[in-house]
Parts: sequence; structure tokens; C-alpha cells
Amino acid sequence: MRAKSPRESLTVLTDLVLPGETNYLDNLFGGELLARMDRACSIAARRHSRRIVVTASVNHVAFTKSVPVGSVVTLEAKVSRAFKSSMEIYVDVWIEDRQSGEKTKVNEGIYTFVAVDETGKPVPIPQIEPETELEKQRYEAALRRKQLSLVLAGKMNPKEAVELKSIFMD
Amino acid sequence: MRAKSPRESLTVLTDLVLPGETNYLDNLFGGELLARMDRACSIAARRHSRRIVVTASVNHVAFTKSVPVGSVVTLEAKVSRAFKSSMEIYVDVWIEDRQSGEKTKVNEGIYTFVAVDETGKPVPIPQIEPETELEKQRYEAALRRKQLSLVLAGKMNPKEAVELKSIFMD
Amino acid sequence: MRAKSPRESLTVLTDLVLPGETNYLDNLFGGELLARMDRACSIAARRHSRRIVVTASVNHVAFTKSVPVGSVVTLEAKVSRAFKSSMEIYVDVWIEDRQSGEKTKVNEGIYTFVAVDETGKPVPIPQIEPETELEKQRYEAALRRKQLSLVLAGKMNPKEAVELKSIFMD
Amino acid sequence: MRAKSPRESLTVLTDLVLPGETNYLDNLFGGELLARMDRACSIAARRHSRRIVVTASVNHVAFTKSVPVGSVVTLEAKVSRAFKSSMEIYVDVWIEDRQSGEKTKVNEGIYTFVAVDETGKPVPIPQIEPETELEKQRYEAALRRKQLSLVLAGKMNPKEAVELKSIFMD
Amino acid sequence: MRAKSPRESLTVLTDLVLPGETNYLDNLFGGELLARMDRACSIAARRHSRRIVVTASVNHVAFTKSVPVGSVVTLEAKVSRAFKSSMEIYVDVWIEDRQSGEKTKVNEGIYTFVAVDETGKPVPIPQIEPETELEKQRYEAALRRKQLSLVLAGKMNPKEAVELKSIFMD
Amino acid sequence: MRAKSPRESLTVLTDLVLPGETNYLDNLFGGELLARMDRACSIAARRHSRRIVVTASVNHVAFTKSVPVGSVVTLEAKVSRAFKSSMEIYVDVWIEDRQSGEKTKVNEGIYTFVAVDETGKPVPIPQIEPETELEKQRYEAALRRKQLSLVLAGKMNPKEAVELKSIFMD
Repeated sequence: MRAKSPRESLTVLTDLVLPGETNYLDNLFGGELLARMDRACSIAARRHSRRIVVTASVNHVAFTKSVPVGSVVTLEAKVSRAFKSSMEIYVDVWIEDRQSGEKTKVNEGIYTFVAVDETGKPVPIPQIEPETELEKQRYEAALRRKQLSLVLAGKMNPKEAVELKSIFMD
Repeated sequence: MRAKSPRESLTVLTDLVLPGETNYLDNLFGGELLARMDRACSIAARRHSRRIVVTASVNHVAFTKSVPVGSVVTLEAKVSRAFKSSMEIYVDVWIEDRQSGEKTKVNEGIYTFVAVDETGKPVPIPQIEPETELEKQRYEAALRRKQLSLVLAGKMNPKEAVELKSIFMD
Repeated sequence: MRAKSPRESLTVLTDLVLPGETNYLDNLFGGELLARMDRACSIAARRHSRRIVVTASVNHVAFTKSVPVGSVVTLEAKVSRAFKSSMEIYVDVWIEDRQSGEKTKVNEGIYTFVAVDETGKPVPIPQIEPETELEKQRYEAALRRKQLSLVLAGKMNPKEAVELKSIFMD
Repeated sequence: MRAKSPRESLTVLTDLVLPGETNYLDNLFGGELLARMDRACSIAARRHSRRIVVTASVNHVAFTKSVPVGSVVTLEAKVSRAFKSSMEIYVDVWIEDRQSGEKTKVNEGIYTFVAVDETGKPVPIPQIEPETELEKQRYEAALRRKQLSLVLAGKMNPKEAVELKSIFMD
Repeated sequence: MRAKSPRESLTVLTDLVLPGETNYLDNLFGGELLARMDRACSIAARRHSRRIVVTASVNHVAFTKSVPVGSVVTLEAKVSRAFKSSMEIYVDVWIEDRQSGEKTKVNEGIYTFVAVDETGKPVPIPQIEPETELEKQRYEAALRRKQLSLVLAGKMNPKEAVELKSIFMD
Repeated sequence: MRAKSPRESLTVLTDLVLPGETNYLDNLFGGELLARMDRACSIAARRHSRRIVVTASVNHVAFTKSVPVGSVVTLEAKVSRAFKSSMEIYVDVWIEDRQSGEKTKVNEGIYTFVAVDETGKPVPIPQIEPETELEKQRYEAALRRKQLSLVLAGKMNPKEAVELKSIFMD
């Protein structure tokens, strides 16, 4: 299978924040944003693998800024690294000012999806060849995050998590 | 106000069709698609005008192909022509085949929005300078559609709808 | 098949506007109204044809007045004209004042549905015999609208759209 | 205040059953039907009283037949009796066969609403003058149901519930 | 079949009131609360019977206090009495004050569910052995409510409703 | 402020999986589950702090088993550790077999919430005193997770993350 660039899986989901999707502070409800991120990431994973994909985990989502009702919210999801049949997807979330058009980053998330066949069995997927500087950074960090997941799940001995360990040493 | 290209208002809304959004033939429910189109067009109108915008009319939406549950649906909306304070927005709808990645157009719609101030009074907006061949065609046709709307609403004498009339003559 | 009156397909959908269905000006969100209109029209089309029906197009919807949260909204849909297997449905939208009970028209829309069998193949449907003055006007205009649709879709030569053409002549 | 007929508050809510509103047997989910009944009854109560109305209780709802996905469901709500500031509303629910057009009753419910002013204080409302035979029966029974509610809530001595008591005697 | 205690079917549903679920007074919409109660009761019925269950009726729901947006609402449902294949379920609804943590009862409801097999035929279910004082009261009252339902439905002669009749006598 | 036990913030959210909440494999849609987890965790955080709380991050959610439509899903959320004004909340997700009543764990998640005053400023909160063995483990691990978050966000030097570092050494 030919390796692909993150750009080939880019998925853009621009939508409004309607009053039915807000919490009692009139900001986009966290759970609704998590759901939109999950949908955008699943489409990116599907575009990369051309397979049925299922959510394996949400590795991290940081809510740095709240998103007020009436905002235009743009999610941009791209596969950051592919493993055997799992993929890490990075999603960035932006809002834009109506009058100036200026964009502000409010949130980012990292999801993992697995590509499966019709019986639910994991299948091999194309690898990723990062192109931009940011894509390369995220590609590198994805391996440490994967090791971390394995360590936390008790499936990898911390001593063997070479890339991860190196953060804490020398 | 500087004229803008349609490209500057391009709004992309890619999302899944979930089972809760289908009709009893397991296709995306028409009304749900109309709602998504309305949201995408309102964002494009807002990006062009940088104003509060309200739906004035749905001029035409043709449902040429049904959209099965599980599809990835992409809406691309762009302002096709601006008048004094109203804008025509064209939205194209695509689905893509999971295995081949091939895109099929399923639907297109034409909406009109009006830019208003906080009191709801219409305000002037930038004009459109079309760039691509398709943008130019849509720009031209927008004027005939506007005349047609005015004629149908009894607000213009059919004899004065010069551009529209010319379709039926010589 | 016996021709039917528009009255036989009359469909009334009265419902509240709840906060979860509003835009950020606290009015009924345009897309939600389009969805309700689509559902009311599809029931009218089904009552006329007694067949499975699918949305073919939204010909025109004009939003003349906004619908504030808490309103009681009444949609009245009736088949205005039947062709071979397609039907035009007219839907009128009203709100009523709580204290006086007075009704105000806020919106009207024209939808086209097609009657199909279980395989999706179009099937013949009963014709319409309009009764009231308004039904007769809408019946007549429906033919011009159909010609206009065909002309705009490039499926009819403008010169042959006799009824439509006559608006612009003499 | 002039007494009104039940007919003056008649509220018709015809709508489809979409897949997102069904339980795991593919029938309309009971809770969704209860919600639609509540909305229809609240509109009837508002039309009768021309006041703000709030749900006081659901007296009885019997689910006699299930409502399959894709059904056209019609709710017809009318005020059956008015007391000082509370009203009893009766709602009948029908589905119709697509091919024959025949209607089947699937459900009926009895709700109580109270009319209030802007501060939430109960206000007097017009009385009901039933016209049809069925309206008269429901009007009579409403008093017994009200006594029953009061007895069950410990707000009336069973011995004083004359109309109710009479059912069990002689 | 071994009899079970109400405790064994206890179902707790704690959730927020989000803005999309409110009426125009910014309180939890009655229909939405009815739907949540129906879901909680159906789970309790299923836990008691370990069968497929369907809503048979809503016997009574009293809305004594409104539930403002942003509230934490807790529903506690338990089977109060089992008959041959039907069960009565009692559901209590509480809100809690954010600062003091104090709980206030806002609502209670009584639902009836029937246990069925895959073909929809009613099946026998375990009986109930109430434990607490409140459970015993509700267990006793459930029989009177059942008789009342049968009487109101014309399926039982009022004279034979011994337990119910006794409320109004001696 | 008196320290509290995790038990005092226990929040139970038991609910059904309805067809409108599933993906195209008829399992609970990942995004919907994330939203339910967010709501349960926010209630636990509020019960612990008795303050307004906002989602700060989703640290980890692992989807180990899919949740089929019609399932009864129980979420149990408890504050696992409190810091100055942020709290870590652990949520466990279970489904139960209808016939045997047996429970299976399908999912767990770790969320962070911050307690704020009406102006959005972080406020101090009570500490946690874990009681059970599992609560103690989660309490210990919460510190390492916090250090990891700070390290990954570039807000802590990896060398200073003593507790975290110790996993990879000796």
C-alpha cells in the first residue's frame, strides 16, 4: 500500500453553534463538541484507510476557550500517524470573529481509530508521510503517545518505551 | 466596500449521515439536508458580508440522488452574487464512495440571505467578482433568478425583466 | 384513477417553537422550518397518491416574517397540481397571537414530490380538480412553474414553454 | 368570560414517525409520543385560555397499539372541561393506512394544564360548553376525574366526592 | 419464579437540564421529562422481569414544581407491584441545590409496563415483595389503581372493585 | 474546607440506547457516549465542589467494547482527586445482559473539570480522601496524569515530574 500524506485525509466541518447545543452559560456544550470532533475524526480515518473505522480511544482533548452560542466553528481533522491498523487523528478547532473574520484556536483533540473489515477484524492500512513542519512534529509525537497508551494500559513495560522514556532522561 | 471573490466565502461542511437523520427508506431525510444547506449558506453569507444574516428565501433545491445512511456528505457553499443587501448563495452537495474515494454530486441548492444590522434593518454589502467559469455562469444567472423572484412576487412588471425575458425571445 | 380535490390531501401540523429549535436571534431556525415543511408536504403527497413519496425539489420558500420562540406555528399543506407521477404541494405557514388569537401568515413554500413503487420506479397518480378560487390560481400557476423548472434544468426549449412565455409577452 | 366550545381549542398535529424517534422494536418510542401529546395539549389549553399555560398533570395515557416507523400520526387535542384556572384536555391519537387511507385509533391521553399570568399566579379562564355527544360524555367524566385526583392527593375526603362515589354505589 | 424486592429493579437516571430541553419559561419542558421518566421506568421493568417490556399506560404524573435550566435532575424508578405480566413502576423525581446540596422532590409518576416475548405475547413475571414502609404503601395502593384502570376502561364492574370501593365507603 | 470522599460525588446515569443515537453498525455512536460521559462527570464535579464547573480536558477515554442499540447503559462517575481548583473525574461505563442481568464493563474515561465563580475565575475546592482500594489507586495515578498533562503542554520540565518519571526508572 502506498503511503499517504495527512493532507489526503483532511476533513473540514464548519457549522454554527445553535442554542439547542449550549450549556447553561450559553457556550457550546462540551459533550456536543466532543461528538462533532468524533465525527470529523472518523471521516478523516475513513478517507485515509478507505475502510470501516471505529473509535478506539480519545487520547486527549483540551478545552482552552469556550465557544459562545452563534459562533461559526471550524473543525479540521487529519490523520497524523498510521500504525498497523490503528490511526491517530489530530483535530484542530477554530472560531472566527464575525466582523474582522479573524480566526482563534479554541480547542484541539487527539483520537485513535481502528480500521476493520465487515466482520470487525482489524485490517492493514496505508502509512503516513508527513509533509509540513507541524505534520512532522505530530507524527513524531504520535509514537510517544502510543507507547504511553500501552504503558498506561499495562500492555508495555515502561522500560521498553524508548521514545517516551527519552523525554524524562538526560 | 471592496468587491470580493466567491472563494472568500467558501464554506465546507463535511459530516456523516447518522441513523437518527434518515427517512424510512434509510436515506438522509430531505428536511435534514435542507437544514444543513441552510446552515452552510448562512455561514457563507456571513463570511461575505461580515454581518448578521437572515434567510430570505430558498430559490431552488433539486434532490437528484438519495443519500444513504452512513454516507459522508460534503456541502460546499459560496456567495454567487451580491445585490444591495441581499446575496444569492449556491450550495453543492457531494457524497463519496468509501472504497474508491470517488465523489458524486447528489444535490444543489440556491438560497437568498439578507444582511442586517442589530435592529434588523438591511445594510449594504460588498459586491462579487466571479473568478472561475462556473462562478461567472452562476453570477450571470443570479440576475435572471432575482428578476424572476420579483416577477413572481408581483414586485416587477414582467416586461421590465430584460435579462429574464431574453431567454424566451429571439 | 378518479381525480381528487386538494382538500382531500390537506395536512395540518400545529406545533410549538421550543428554544432548542431557534437561531441566535431567538427565532425559529430557518432550517428547522424547512424540515417541518418537508414533512407536512410529504404527508399531503402521500395522502393524495397513497404511495411512497420522495422529495424531488423545493421550488420556492419565502421567509417573510420571523417566528419567535414560544410561537404556535401552523402548517397547512395541500397538493396543488398532479402531473404524471409528480405532484406540486403548496404549504402555508401561520403563527397566532396568544392574546387575540389572530393569525398572521409568515411563510409559504412550494415542494415537488414523486410517487414511487417499492423499487423506486415512478408510478401514475390521480389528477387534481381544484375547488376554491385560490386552489384554481395555484393549479394554473403550477404548470408555469413546471415549465420553468424544465427550462432552468435545460430539459425544455424556452420557446416551447408556452404558458410561461406568455407572462413576458403581449 | 364567555364560555367556549371544545371545538374552538381543537389542535391538530400531523407528523411522521422518523427512525430517530423509535424504540428498539422500530415503533414510536413511548416517551416521544408523550412529548408530542404534551405539546398538542398545551396548544389547545392556550387557545382556550389565551394565557400562558403549564402542565399540571398527566391523568392517564393508554398505549393500546404500537406505532410503527414511517407511520403518519395525527393527534387531535381539545379542552374537555374547564375549572377555575385549570383545564382538562383530551387528546386522541390516530394512524392511517397508506394504501387504504383508513384511520386507526392507537392511543388517547388526558392532561391537565393551569393558566397563569407572567408571575406564575393562576388566573380565571372561560368555561366549556360541550356540543357533540362525545364532548358531553368527556365533560361529565372530567368532574369525576378531578375528584379522583383530589382524593388520591389527599385534598378531598372520599365521602365528599359525590359524582365519583356514585360509580361504585347503587 | 422467585419474588423480588423493589430494590432489585432500582434505576437511577441523573442528568442535566440543557437549554435545548426547556420550554419558553426556561424550565424543563414537560414532554421531555415524561420521556425521561418513561425510559427510567422501562429499565426498571426490564430489570425486574428480564424480558422485553412495552409501555402500557401512564397512570398518573403530577408536576408539582418546575425544573429550571441548569438543574441536576435525578429520577429513581422501582417496580411497585407485579401482576400476571404487567408491572406498576413508581418514579420519583428530585432536583438538588448546587450550593447546599439539598434535594427537593419536584414530580412523581406511575407507569405500567407489560413483559412480552419476541412475538409480542405477554409472559409471566416474578411477583414483588415490598420491604420499606413506602414500598408497602405503594404496593397496596397499586391494586386499587389497577382496579380503577379496569373500571375506567369498562373492563371491570365497579361493584367488584372491592379494594377501590372501600375508599368511598364505611 | 473539609475533605470529601469520592463516594459523596457519585453520579449514576442509567439510560437506554435508542436507534437515533447509533452509528451505521447499530452501536451507540462514540460521540454520543462522550457527551453522556461529559454530563455525568460534570455533575460529579459539581456535587464535589458545589460550584459552577467547566470541562477543562478529556484525558483519556478507551472504547473497549461496542454498545449495541437497545442496551441499558450505566455510567458511574466519581471525583478521583482534587487539586487547587481542578478535579479529575473517573467514569466507568457498564452494560447489562437483559436475560442474566450480568454487567460488563465497556468503557472508562477520565475528565478534568475546573470550578469557577460567576465571573469564570477559578476557586478553591475541597480535597479528596479516597476510601476503597480502587479509589486509592486512582487517587495516586491522578498526580502522575496531571504531571503528564503539564509536561505535554510544555508547562512542566519533564525532569521535575518526579512521580511520573519514577515509572520509567529503576
